[in-house]
Amino acid sequence: MCILLGGLMTMKTILIYSGGVDSTVLLYHLLADGYQVRCLGINYGQRHQRELDAAAEICRQLNVEYRIADLSAVRSLLSGSALTDDVAVPQGPYDTESMKQTVVPNRNMIMLSVAIGWAVRLKFDHVAYAAHAGDHAVYPDCRPEFAEAMDKAASLCDWHKVRIIRPFIDMTKTDIIRKGADLKVPFDKTWSCYMGGRVHCGKCGTCIERREAFKSAGVTDPTVYGD
Amino acid sequence: MCILLGGLMTMKTILIYSGGVDSTVLLYHLLADGYQVRCLGINYGQRHQRELDAAAEICRQLNVEYRIADLSAVRSLLSGSALTDDVAVPQGPYDTESMKQTVVPNRNMIMLSVAIGWAVRLKFDHVAYAAHAGDHAVYPDCRPEFAEAMDKAASLCDWHKVRIIRPFIDMTKTDIIRKGADLKVPFDKTWSCYMGGRVHCGKCGTCIERREAFKSAGVTDPTVYGD
Repeated sequence: MCILLGGLMTMKTILIYSGGVDSTVLLYHLLADGYQVRCLGINYGQRHQRELDAAAEICRQLNVEYRIADLSAVRSLLSGSALTDDVAVPQGPYDTESMKQTVVPNRNMIMLSVAIGWAVRLKFDHVAYAAHAGDHAVYPDCRPEFAEAMDKAASLCDWHKVRIIRPFIDMTKTDIIRKGADLKVPFDKTWSCYMGGRVHCGKCGTCIERREAFKSAGVTDPTVYGD
Repeated sequence: MCILLGGLMTMKTILIYSGGVDSTVLLYHLLADGYQVRCLGINYGQRHQRELDAAAEICRQLNVEYRIADLSAVRSLLSGSALTDDVAVPQGPYDTESMKQTVVPNRNMIMLSVAIGWAVRLKFDHVAYAAHAGDHAVYPDCRPEFAEAMDKAASLCDWHKVRIIRPFIDMTKTDIIRKGADLKVPFDKTWSCYMGGRVHCGKCGTCIERREAFKSAGVTDPTVYGD
């Protein structure tokens, strides 16, 4: 898939990159497959410096360009206090995944649209993100039908066609960690926790998911947890 | 279309609103049809204060909420000087429409995704914008196929379905001005010019288009032009 015409063409991909386990394994996977990759981090104002540093450090070591789209203003529009309508306020650290959804409605479409814009600008072929098999049960915008509609829109938004790829869509998080181990991904440098501490808290939703996936993959978890 | 169940349900719509002729006529049209409307302006950092003031003033007179999404940071990511790739630099005031396209790649998708996010947040039914019959010959993201793909994505991005409507898609700018005259739109308060002067320059692409449309519609043009 990566090399066409006997190696003459390198596929070029924007990767939506959080510095977490899934997107870091995808970064290593794309590079191993010969893709030219640039990474885009999306910051809605709620991300901790620790996460952004993790992503930046991994990209620096790989010599991959990493840019951050600062969408704090979108967050304040879509969930700021100036909007007075009733919505459920996110509750506590244990429900951080649903918190992310609540804080910025339609976040995946907004994220993809900015990444597609960058791809159009650079005349890149693809936007990639690390959606996986466990996601779509929970979030409407992780459903395959949503991704297909966005892929169609991406191919039509400019005379230069961009396609959306989700190479891990049929894999579980456990599969992804096994693949990462094969690719010698530096898991200790990735960051999942939403609590913004010096080390992973070990207790929030994403920490629990991270721990369990390493365990079920049978891969040594190098993460330092605070609990 | 606006009133269902014998007047019990009012359709609620986010209108992507620039303060120009087309979207102002659409605002009046939606209100006349009984829609509940909130207006969203998108500012990529290139809009002049004059335009934003025009939109705000019209909304204030109509008692319609008007919010601005500040996406300056997106513009600096997608077309900032930190990106060193060669692109055609927009040339001169006469080509402002192509300039808009060049300045922010994929602007329509980004704009729609933010509007859809707001609609999801408010549990509104629609996002409306004033695409018309003349647009799609020029811009890839004004093609019906693009709008259909985005409509599909909008209906899937959340458990609450949002649909995209383009009530003027089969109308020319001339038709729109005739409709605006019927609806008593205060054309003198709308703003089209991209030059940021005190009055419309009369010479840029959008001023020329505005002038010609009033003329061919047979509607008195109240605009003060500088030339």
